[in-house]
Formats: sequence, structure tokens, C-alpha cells
Amino acid sequence: MMDRVAVVGLGLIGGSFAAGLKQKELAGHISAFDVDAAGLDSGLQQGIIDSVAESVADACKDADLVMISVPVLSVQSILQDISPTSLITDVGSVKAPIIEASRAVFGDVPSTLVPGHPIAGSEQHGVAAADPRLFEKHRVILTPVESTDPASTDQVRQLWQGLGSTVIEMSVEHHDWVLAQTSHLPHLLAYALVDSLSSQGDSMEVFQYAAGGFRDFSRIAASDPVMWRDIFQANGPAVLSILDRFLDELGDIRQMIAQGDSEALEQVFQRAKEARDHYSEQNSEQNSEQNAQ
Amino acid sequence: MMDRVAVVGLGLIGGSFAAGLKQKELAGHISAFDVDAAGLDSGLQQGIIDSVAESVADACKDADLVMISVPVLSVQSILQDISPTSLITDVGSVKAPIIEASRAVFGDVPSTLVPGHPIAGSEQHGVAAADPRLFEKHRVILTPVESTDPASTDQVRQLWQGLGSTVIEMSVEHHDWVLAQTSHLPHLLAYALVDSLSSQGDSMEVFQYAAGGFRDFSRIAASDPVMWRDIFQANGPAVLSILDRFLDELGDIRQMIAQGDSEALEQVFQRAKEARDHYSEQNSEQNSEQNAQ
Repeated sequence: MMDRVAVVGLGLIGGSFAAGLKQKELAGHISAFDVDAAGLDSGLQQGIIDSVAESVADACKDADLVMISVPVLSVQSILQDISPTSLITDVGSVKAPIIEASRAVFGDVPSTLVPGHPIAGSEQHGVAAADPRLFEKHRVILTPVESTDPASTDQVRQLWQGLGSTVIEMSVEHHDWVLAQTSHLPHLLAYALVDSLSSQGDSMEVFQYAAGGFRDFSRIAASDPVMWRDIFQANGPAVLSILDRFLDELGDIRQMIAQGDSEALEQVFQRAKEARDHYSEQNSEQNSEQNAQ
Repeated sequence: MMDRVAVVGLGLIGGSFAAGLKQKELAGHISAFDVDAAGLDSGLQQGIIDSVAESVADACKDADLVMISVPVLSVQSILQDISPTSLITDVGSVKAPIIEASRAVFGDVPSTLVPGHPIAGSEQHGVAAADPRLFEKHRVILTPVESTDPASTDQVRQLWQGLGSTVIEMSVEHHDWVLAQTSHLPHLLAYALVDSLSSQGDSMEVFQYAAGGFRDFSRIAASDPVMWRDIFQANGPAVLSILDRFLDELGDIRQMIAQGDSEALEQVFQRAKEARDHYSEQNSEQNSEQNAQ
């Protein structure tokens, strides 16, 4: 339970966090600031925040907890207006720039700053799509650094757990590497695929006959362009390294098709299928174990 | 209503077709043949077929309709054992090889052959996963050629409509081109992505933190390797042409990230988002219209 919470950036994630805290009665008063005044009004009318602030500083003064939910490269300008006496956390999809921003503003990472990242989202955005249950049964990764007070990490962990999330800790570097693989590269492929296909022929037709996996995959190309622009700028080296390995593999597969080497092609597909199936089995076992507990 | 139906290849699609015909009472007797005897037994026990045949010829003799649901490059060997006096259709994801197979076996495409392709499926396979409602509210593409009797096309169309599908007609060439874009290339990317990611580091971790779009996308890498090997062999030129355009675009995006050109990157993302959003709006309008009728 937090007495006073400030949410800076009241979009889908900030709004869902506020809505979740309200629903679970984990916050006393929630104040919010956003550059979009209409979104703040909407949040007020939805009853997920208690007051609208005039500025970041106004939202955060006397706050017990500040939640920063803005595109990653905007975090530094926000930190400039916050006092590290508050507990501070964020939801950015890349963690290294949060650490850099903190060092630039505070000289180091304050003991009260707990970088975080909920592995949840949607191609929807804006506070109108806020959902108090968005984080339920989803993982949240926290990346505390050496100077982070373990008590701060505990407080942030308990809030996320209160919203129904499973909280995991890992290093900043490991987070940024894993997410480059599981989220950033797939988003890049979805954007490239949708842009490449929709620029040729009848683009409506392309989506019309999209079935199953591609339908879901193309949906992620509707994600917020500014947020993703920042992610690729912030996590460029990791994304490029993983993209290049992917391009090598795709080049090999291209050769197999061009040369009609269907045996090699089948081997690749079989290997990918086994990896995916192996995960599905492990995952369903884990879920049954969790359900049994 | 068909008096005697033969299903050659009793997997997910063939089994779901048989199950659908049974449920909607659109078939009298359904006979099936498959190289997998256990699958045939299972189909019999599930009550979705009435008899198990010893061979393709045995399944198809006296059949009013033969449904061929095997990997595309196996269709030719099946046609050799079928008389074109039956109405014949198939569900292959590439249509050109069906025409070629027919010409090789019959010298031309018989008036009774109606190539087809339901845009439905799942990463599950085998008759055990058969679902009589698999095709409901899904599109089915028929690609009749000049020699196809329009009455044959009508009969096949009515069967699919009876299973709840929306039936569209297009040329063989157009089908193979559109599907290379909407299905074949996305599957190739999913296989390549899963194989590339799972071969480095902790592959379980990669799937564990996969959220939203990637989770769905990686699931299609669990599709049947033999079926997909055949698709890429059969539709190689179209897939390679579309893959190369995609690789060009991905190369451009790679440059934008490497050079930190975040403005250009945002433009690509914005364009892809607009294309996807435009489709979503059109589609929801169409759905409302359909529901209103």
C-alpha cells in the first residue's frame, strides 16, 4: 500500500498500473501528469487517477512512489524533475538507458530507483484502453543495480505482485539482450513485413488472407511508433547483433529453397518445431505445477 | 449432400472436413485412407469416418466426392489411383502443383477437379485434433481452371458454405502469389526466428519472456515440417521474390538503426501502423455489415 503515487505518462501501461492499484486498493491518492491533457481528463473520468498535475514536478512532490511510463528516451528529462527521496520505478523496454539517464541526472543510480519492465502490453494504446488486469499472470522483470536498496526493490516487487504479476530479477545487460531476442527483433520483423507487403499490390488483400500466426504477428505492427523508435535507438547494438545472426540463418534458408534442397529445409523446420514443442511441454508442466500449489 | 465421400489423408484438415460433414449431415458414408493406420482407427473411434480403406483406390471407388488432404507434393501419386468420374477437390496451400499433377496424370485438368484451399489451420496436427468447426467463419479459396465444369465448382462451394466458410474464387497464379505473402513468407520467418533464437544461449528463456505477438508467431513454427517443406519447394519462385523484397526492406531498416536515423525509422513504423490500422477499420466495418445482413 502506497499513500501517494505519481504516474508520469498516462498511456496504456501507466493507466493500467494506476487502474490496477485502484482496483486492488494498493494506493491512497494517485496523481498523474502527461503531455496529453485529454488523456489525463479521461483518466480522471475513468476514476483511475485522483488528480491531474500541472507538471512532472507537481505530480511527484510528496509522492511515495513515482511510476515513469514514457518512451525510454524521454525518461531522462522526467528524472530531472523528480527528487530521489521518492521510490522511483519505470516500465521501459530497454533498461540501460534508464541507468544512463539516472547517472546523467543524479550522478549515480539512487538507492530508491528500481528499474522495471512488465512483459505485457497490447497494440492498443492510450489511457482509454487501460485495463486493471493487464499485468495479471504476466512476468515483470526488475533490474536493480548495486546501489539500489534491496528494501526499494522489495516494495516495487510487492506492488507488482499485488497486481497479480510474477516478478523476476535480472541484470540490466541480460534484460536488454533477452528482450532484443524475444521482443525487439520480432517487432522489427513485423514492422518490416507489414510495410514490405502493404507497399506492393493490393494491400487490403494481403491482410484479408492472413491467417492464424501472421494475423497476430501483423497486429504488433500497430504498436506505438515513437515508443518503438526509442527502443531501437536505445538497444541498437544488441538488436543488430541478433538481427545479423537471424539474417545469416534466413540467407541459408533462402539458399535451400533456391537450390531445392528440401531435405535441409525439412531439418530446419523440424529443429524449430522441436524447440517450440519442447518449450510448450515445459511450460504446460510448469503451469500445472503452479496450479497444483 | 454427398452420398459417398472419400477422404485421402486423414490429418487435422482432412479429419476436420470429415467431422464437419458428419456434424452438418452433409455426407452419407465417409471412407478414409491414410498411410498412418493409427490415425484411421482414431478417426473411426471418434465417429468422424464410417470406414477405413485399404488403399487410395479402395477409398475412392464409387465416391461422389474425393477430398485430397495430403502435403502438396504427394497429390500426384494420389491422383494416379483416382477416377476423374468422381468430383475431386483438395486443400493444398499451393495450387500450381495440383494443376501440374493433374496434367501429368490425366493429360489435362478434368472437369470434375476443383482445386481448393481453406485459410484455416492450427499448429496442431493429426486427426486427434480434428474440429468440425475449424472452417467456420474462415475463407476458402477455390481456383477452378478453364476446363473445370462450373457445376463442379458449385458443388464444392456449397459443401464449404455448409461448413460455415466464405468461399472466394481466384486464379491459380494469384492464389499462389497472395499466399506466398500472407502465409508462406511469415511461416518462413517464424521457422528462421525460432531456429535462430533457440540455437543460442538459453533457449527456454527466449520463449519464457516472449510476449504477445511473438508468442503467437513462434507457435506457427510448430507446424508440420513435411507439409511446409513441400510448400516451399512447390512455391519457391514466388516465395523467393517476396523474400528478396522483404530482405531489401529489412536491410534498409538495419541501416537506419546502425546510423541512428530514428526519424526514418519512425516513418517506417508509422507507415506500417497506418496500413495495419486501415485494415482493422475496414475489416471491422465489413464484419458489422455482414452481421447486419
